[in-house]
Amino acid sequence: MIPTLRVERDDAANLSMQLATHLRELILAGDLPPGTRLPASRVLASEQGVSRTTAVAAYEQLTSEGLLVSRVGAGTYISDEVRTPPAHRTPFEADGHLPRLAHFSREISEQFFPRLTHPCSPRPFVTGMPAFDAFPMAQWSRLSAKYWRGARADIMSYPDATGLPELRMAICRHLRANRGLVCEPEEVFVFAGAQDAFLQIAQMLLDPGDRVWMENPGAIGARNAFLSRGAELVPVPVDAEGLDVAAGRRACPNMRMAFVTPAHQHPMGYTMSRDRRFELLAAAEESGAWIVEDDYVGEFHYGRSPLPPLKALDGAGRVVYVGTFSKALFPAIRLGYAVVPSGLVDIFERTLGAAAHGVSHAMQSIVADFIAEGHFSAHLRRMRDLYRTRRDALLAAGARHLDGRLMLLPTETGFHTVGLLPEGADEARVVEAVSAAGLATAPLSRFALSPLAVKGLTLGFSAVAPHEMEKGVERLAAALRALG
Amino acid sequence: MIPTLRVERDDAANLSMQLATHLRELILAGDLPPGTRLPASRVLASEQGVSRTTAVAAYEQLTSEGLLVSRVGAGTYISDEVRTPPAHRTPFEADGHLPRLAHFSREISEQFFPRLTHPCSPRPFVTGMPAFDAFPMAQWSRLSAKYWRGARADIMSYPDATGLPELRMAICRHLRANRGLVCEPEEVFVFAGAQDAFLQIAQMLLDPGDRVWMENPGAIGARNAFLSRGAELVPVPVDAEGLDVAAGRRACPNMRMAFVTPAHQHPMGYTMSRDRRFELLAAAEESGAWIVEDDYVGEFHYGRSPLPPLKALDGAGRVVYVGTFSKALFPAIRLGYAVVPSGLVDIFERTLGAAAHGVSHAMQSIVADFIAEGHFSAHLRRMRDLYRTRRDALLAAGARHLDGRLMLLPTETGFHTVGLLPEGADEARVVEAVSAAGLATAPLSRFALSPLAVKGLTLGFSAVAPHEMEKGVERLAAALRALG
Repeated sequence: MIPTLRVERDDAANLSMQLATHLRELILAGDLPPGTRLPASRVLASEQGVSRTTAVAAYEQLTSEGLLVSRVGAGTYISDEVRTPPAHRTPFEADGHLPRLAHFSREISEQFFPRLTHPCSPRPFVTGMPAFDAFPMAQWSRLSAKYWRGARADIMSYPDATGLPELRMAICRHLRANRGLVCEPEEVFVFAGAQDAFLQIAQMLLDPGDRVWMENPGAIGARNAFLSRGAELVPVPVDAEGLDVAAGRRACPNMRMAFVTPAHQHPMGYTMSRDRRFELLAAAEESGAWIVEDDYVGEFHYGRSPLPPLKALDGAGRVVYVGTFSKALFPAIRLGYAVVPSGLVDIFERTLGAAAHGVSHAMQSIVADFIAEGHFSAHLRRMRDLYRTRRDALLAAGARHLDGRLMLLPTETGFHTVGLLPEGADEARVVEAVSAAGLATAPLSRFALSPLAVKGLTLGFSAVAPHEMEKGVERLAAALRALG
Repeated sequence: MIPTLRVERDDAANLSMQLATHLRELILAGDLPPGTRLPASRVLASEQGVSRTTAVAAYEQLTSEGLLVSRVGAGTYISDEVRTPPAHRTPFEADGHLPRLAHFSREISEQFFPRLTHPCSPRPFVTGMPAFDAFPMAQWSRLSAKYWRGARADIMSYPDATGLPELRMAICRHLRANRGLVCEPEEVFVFAGAQDAFLQIAQMLLDPGDRVWMENPGAIGARNAFLSRGAELVPVPVDAEGLDVAAGRRACPNMRMAFVTPAHQHPMGYTMSRDRRFELLAAAEESGAWIVEDDYVGEFHYGRSPLPPLKALDGAGRVVYVGTFSKALFPAIRLGYAVVPSGLVDIFERTLGAAAHGVSHAMQSIVADFIAEGHFSAHLRRMRDLYRTRRDALLAAGARHLDGRLMLLPTETGFHTVGLLPEGADEARVVEAVSAAGLATAPLSRFALSPLAVKGLTLGFSAVAPHEMEKGVERLAAALRALG
């Protein structure tokens, strides 16, 4: 009657606990319905091939949990108090009796929300992915080994919620050297990646209903982070100079926050012009708004004299700068950071101190050493050259093969560029054909908050070797030709 | 006039960029006010000991940024557009012109919020801290080294937001073996610690204004996580049977969520009784509420036949179970998990997929190996014995030295117990004296949501060796005697 227990000898639980777990599972799964009479402990013992003591102990355990009741002289029964669960993996909607969800979860389950993508294969033209094969893993492993060799109590406890002091210091040094941004360690806060930073910043600065300027097309992660806080997003168009501040003022002059990617507008790849930066700073001051600057590929610029981050021009202390190590090192370490205006330092310290427990001490410490020993700046220099070469290879191959079917934007920064489609092209159909050709791409519409004037697709160059790129562009061209 | 640049040769930035950063800093700091005329590039070059080309390049860079303007024949000036920042580290309140904060941040800055503590020294009677010296760091380092040796592209990209499959599997195995909890890997979601899980669960299940039953006294981290979501907390008293469900029904029959620590009520250390567990499950069904079960020290029970988690009795699919590796391994790895009802699996997958990027791949993978190779269960067995010994040592020493000045609760679980003070004692004064004696403790009032009937302090035993414990208790007794 009762299926036999598969005893796990290497199991931490003793035999009677394993038997109790086995029976509990059958009871709560409804295989043994309430009221069922169980075999006498003697019988159970012989059926399950355990000692009678073990069987008795298991029954006692389940009785103490209220799952079994013993009626004197009448044996052991499954309690009528036991409730059996709904069928396995009922979708929430189908399970009418469950409590309600938060508004954001309901939105997610009812509407279309683009997922954050997790690229992992380096086929053309995957975006947002560094050249893993060019990463100095030997140095990294050495630093990791050194870290754990030295492991003592002082690194095993809770890391400070604001970040490891050595890493906050190292980030200042990096930003000054590689981004022309000067800040104090106390203004730097470490998060588990830029996405985590967006979620925490939204929690600290946004209330439900607050309006946020978002670039359209724009970054998906930040968008969903602000939506999770109940913010109301205001799509603001972008052009070759970046966010169209005048259009933003017309659409919503009293925003609470503006989100921008000045170094490399995501996904179009435009760099925000100097004038637009001053316009945005002025607009934020007029409306009493925060600015969140996502500098996600700021270290990778291929032109001459790049503009520094918007944050470097922020005299009024309204810009929260967000950076990540996902592009400059690799995403799996999950480390990013925010540089906040001095007026927000206390607030961030208090809020994180009350509600957060920090991120992996090991990852923070290893990255801090990686920067301090100079590997990071050296790696950035090498990668800048490598990515420039790969961008050039993509643009050159495009000029050779695409016959104007796709107009590649000559981006000066970042990991990808955009191929614009001619008027009247069917973006969805093109992306379908390109994907069918085994190429990784995304339609611009995927990044749209409201319908876009342009059509096109993203073409990543950072993760793909030039000869692969050439082949990829040939397949891309063939796919486009086939569409006529 | 212009302080000399300290050139950093190992700096990734070239000399002109360093000089531009140097000047930008002086300009934005207000040391060189708008309208100031700068020296001719020839003069700057000699002053700064750089080539004239470098000086010209730096001027061009800053001009392109809009910080400098050149008037033909009249030289180079600092633009009048430049705005200088407020004095360094202005506290938010003092900086009247900054935009407003989210409600939660305002609360934090205006009211008292207990901070999450970060114990790091093993002095008596620190709480919530495992015995770091007993951790098998050699095995851990070996697994870590193995992980990085094998590092390839497939582990360098973004981890799945729901958690590493191997770890989700390993957690199921652990919960079944060590907690008598049976679940499917797809129901397990990995977070950066229990605190991160509380924040994300609050985001998915709570809207501002939703009422949440909280144990009083109760856990601080979960409390602040729910407050960060705008929840309204309802203090519910606890007694030796755990949460007083009847009192909760009277105070707020229509709660949206109940938060409980059944295995070891935090901070009192009581285990929730069987009857109370059934009462709570029934109350949650009646009011359409979720239950969040924090099993933070569930692996550490020193009595016989411990009750399984509340989740194991959850036939109706309302309990979200939260566990952590901070106590069973060590906090610095920042790993925890939630086991959700099958009805919530899709929602959690969608919400995390849209707004989260997962936690450190390395930490997840190393912990998964640590469990799979059996080190984890073995470590738990050793630690259970070690902590039982330390608890016994504390209780025995207390019986020898405290003369009833402090009544130690004989907890059967966890990392600490509570010493109750007699009627009319001055808790704050006692804690002050005990801390002055170099002992780590916290007053029960620290965990109070509303005034408590009992007075006392926490006494951790997990991190302190028995002979240290003896000395600690002697100092504790002396401090209490001194108070008369």
